Amino acid sequence: MRLYDYFRSSAAYRVRIVLNLKGLEAERIYIHLAKGEQHGEAYKAVNPQGLLPVLVDDDGTTVSQSLAIIEYLDDIHPNPRLLPADTPGRARVRSLAYQIACEIHPLNNLRVLKYLTGEMGLSEEQKLTWYRHWIATGFEALEKSLAASPETGDFCHGNQPGLADVCLVPQVFNARRFECDLSAYPTITRIADHCNTIDAFAAAAPARQPDAG
Amino acid sequence: MRLYDYFRSSAAYRVRIVLNLKGLEAERIYIHLAKGEQHGEAYKAVNPQGLLPVLVDDDGTTVSQSLAIIEYLDDIHPNPRLLPADTPGRARVRSLAYQIACEIHPLNNLRVLKYLTGEMGLSEEQKLTWYRHWIATGFEALEKSLAASPETGDFCHGNQPGLADVCLVPQVFNARRFECDLSAYPTITRIADHCNTIDAFAAAAPARQPDAG
Repeated sequence: MRLYDYFRSSAAYRVRIVLNLKGLEAERIYIHLAKGEQHGEAYKAVNPQGLLPVLVDDDGTTVSQSLAIIEYLDDIHPNPRLLPADTPGRARVRSLAYQIACEIHPLNNLRVLKYLTGEMGLSEEQKLTWYRHWIATGFEALEKSLAASPETGDFCHGNQPGLADVCLVPQVFNARRFECDLSAYPTITRIADHCNTIDAFAAAAPARQPDAG
Repeated sequence: MRLYDYFRSSAAYRVRIVLNLKGLEAERIYIHLAKGEQHGEAYKAVNPQGLLPVLVDDDGTTVSQSLAIIEYLDDIHPNPRLLPADTPGRARVRSLAYQIACEIHPLNNLRVLKYLTGEMGLSEEQKLTWYRHWIATGFEALEKSLAASPETGDFCHGNQPGLADVCLVPQVFNARRFECDLSAYPTITRIADHCNTIDAFAAAAPARQPDAG
């Protein structure tokens, strides 16, 4: 299989973690977001959204959207499973994952930040205020949910890494890159730091990618 | 089961469609977003995110995030299924759904628009420009994906309604409410208009809810 990737894309970072957790190899095709390669005709033919990542499986199945890719990989390579076997557990893990993937990440990705400082005329300082506001809003709620639940363990759900952790680690990475104060979220940082002691997570980090620079 | 709902929440609108498609009844508890009831202590105890919808099942299972609720309902009430039986089909439908739920909707929901005109100091005109920009960006890509695929049918995937349609219809409703020009997206509007001829979709529309006003 092939993965269209960019070291700093946190949606691609999620998929890299999943490939590592499942012991899968994928050929990497690097699309340089900061240079705008995602807007070129060649990549738009692969993904009209101009977003990363995209997975192309050996039979030609092409999947965009990181969470759809991860569910796909969990379907075809179920060992280890990234969602619990029980229905309420699956709902809890998906809810935690979407609290990041649908409420925090979309507001802070590169194209949104560029639009804010470009077309919308915001200053760099306002952009940082915006960034940190959505991290704080999302993490405050997530911390409460995680801290209050007996189902939270070493990871977001019990003692095996899963879909929620796969979303959490890149989001915490980004928050630190933008120097957000995370002292009010001890459960979030404990889980993220624990994940990063595992090679599948650590090896997916932006700095360890061949295209990092 | 109980659904925390608000007529104008498009995430709740998705869940209302799904309940109708599956013939499920849920007691409704209305949280008035425009009056700020989601920020009250009572609702924050149900959902620390202060977001709608939340589903509480009869056994006490509490699920936030509309897509997690929908996957949960599809797990426990699989008739009719909202995701295809085949793995590539499931991946395609999830990808289409997330193109809306992770790329368009999060940028244009009420709290984001309020933050733009409040803390960020944007004008009403800039807010509309922002709104329409993300509709146009997202719909342009979605239209290409839908129009190019032989798997697109009367609905986003074949001839049965599914998860992607459930996300599409509220997004098209919102786009029309904000007077976005949709003439460049004939496949999107054809599918949404077809969905709305079905009572499960039509009965979930904001204007038909008891709390509309």
